[in-house]
Amino acid sequence: MMDFLPFAEALADAARRETLPRWTDGCPASDKGGPEGFDPVTDADREAEAAMRRLIEHRFPNHGISGEEMPERPARGRWSWSLDPVDGTRSFVCGLPSWTTLIALLDEGAPLLGIVDAAALGERYVGTPDGAFLDKADRRLALNTSDRRTLCEARLSTTDPYIFDPSQKAAFERLRGRALTTRYGLDAYGYARVAAGSLDLVVEAGLKPHDYNALIPVVRGAGGVIGDWKGGEDFERGQIVAAASRELYEEAVRLIG
Amino acid sequence: MMDFLPFAEALADAARRETLPRWTDGCPASDKGGPEGFDPVTDADREAEAAMRRLIEHRFPNHGISGEEMPERPARGRWSWSLDPVDGTRSFVCGLPSWTTLIALLDEGAPLLGIVDAAALGERYVGTPDGAFLDKADRRLALNTSDRRTLCEARLSTTDPYIFDPSQKAAFERLRGRALTTRYGLDAYGYARVAAGSLDLVVEAGLKPHDYNALIPVVRGAGGVIGDWKGGEDFERGQIVAAASRELYEEAVRLIG
Repeated sequence: MMDFLPFAEALADAARRETLPRWTDGCPASDKGGPEGFDPVTDADREAEAAMRRLIEHRFPNHGISGEEMPERPARGRWSWSLDPVDGTRSFVCGLPSWTTLIALLDEGAPLLGIVDAAALGERYVGTPDGAFLDKADRRLALNTSDRRTLCEARLSTTDPYIFDPSQKAAFERLRGRALTTRYGLDAYGYARVAAGSLDLVVEAGLKPHDYNALIPVVRGAGGVIGDWKGGEDFERGQIVAAASRELYEEAVRLIG
Repeated sequence: MMDFLPFAEALADAARRETLPRWTDGCPASDKGGPEGFDPVTDADREAEAAMRRLIEHRFPNHGISGEEMPERPARGRWSWSLDPVDGTRSFVCGLPSWTTLIALLDEGAPLLGIVDAAALGERYVGTPDGAFLDKADRRLALNTSDRRTLCEARLSTTDPYIFDPSQKAAFERLRGRALTTRYGLDAYGYARVAAGSLDLVVEAGLKPHDYNALIPVVRGAGGVIGDWKGGEDFERGQIVAAASRELYEEAVRLIG
């Protein structure tokens, strides 16, 4: 399975070639017209997904592909890829560098390899069953979550407190009231910082498979815990908790349950 | 007055020498014990302010100094400096790169030169009466705000929606409901991105002079408008609006007034 890792990194490289040159101030955006209103899709999104799909279709024509932008390609066999060419498109169009490209390799639907590629920051977070690492500025660093085990010492993050429904919002505010500090607006980059040990807890709702698949191997490979809001692994509801430690995950789940 | 610019840049360089080596994951933080609870002050904060003060006291012993961390030094004459060694200390201790060092030169209390130095991103935003520019990766780029003039096309930002009091929160939510998109958690970096044209509107409350003095020459030098929530320049109330254009500033003020 680890033979796929260089290929997964080549996918991230191909995405960077499409995203970075287009990451300019005031990048043109169009409107998907979804029920939430503004949802920018940039050329970067479309071209990066197309570039990754071309590589997969050429090298592994039997692999499935599920991306944010284009129709699903069913797998013939056990392997499939989950792609989000630009996670954090709002940050992208606001000239903020925390957007990422998300790539996951799934074995019978279970994510085994994950890449969170923060191209504008020059940081690539990679999760495998054997651990997780960060490539930055020609250095490779092992990723380890922090040793914080209680909410009162936890650095909490969520992308947008306004996307919660009222009961989710109340649950989040219980966490926020007890956490050490809270940050917003990070999308997948928040999970990468949990893996790196500088954040301790991310709580979000409304995530799609292409949003969360790549995060699972990265957080787990760094020693963290990622699950749903009820203490299980029903990710498909889109309610995700990622924590630096089992104790912190369980304390968070007790408070939001 | 422009003779002070190289000196102001030397202050930013001195601050970087203290902040960047200490900007590591899980940077130790202490608690100021203020009424808001958690307020990290890192060694980086204290040492960067001390380094800048030493340079000013040596070169311009008559200049006043007002910093976040140490007692005010009164001016003997017209010139004084406003220093915030680490704006966005919460981002700093959460391993997020959007923290900045803020430096302003004031003439009889009015900010004339401003620097927003995003050291971890390698970006230095400089505002002068003759314009504003960004130094990044050995390139100097002129800063110009966007041409967006209406709230419905504006990319809005505020640092933390939970720091508003109830009437401020209602005012902010009126803006948020009409803006194109909203981002959080940027501290002074949001104003720098208004100057760079990738955000269009920042609305905040609770800012101290060391938080806003450096922002004024940067936003104005880039062609933007920065004022208070009532359409004036009573910055001392700490309620700040920065906008890409006069029209957008006035639309925002009408909605929050």
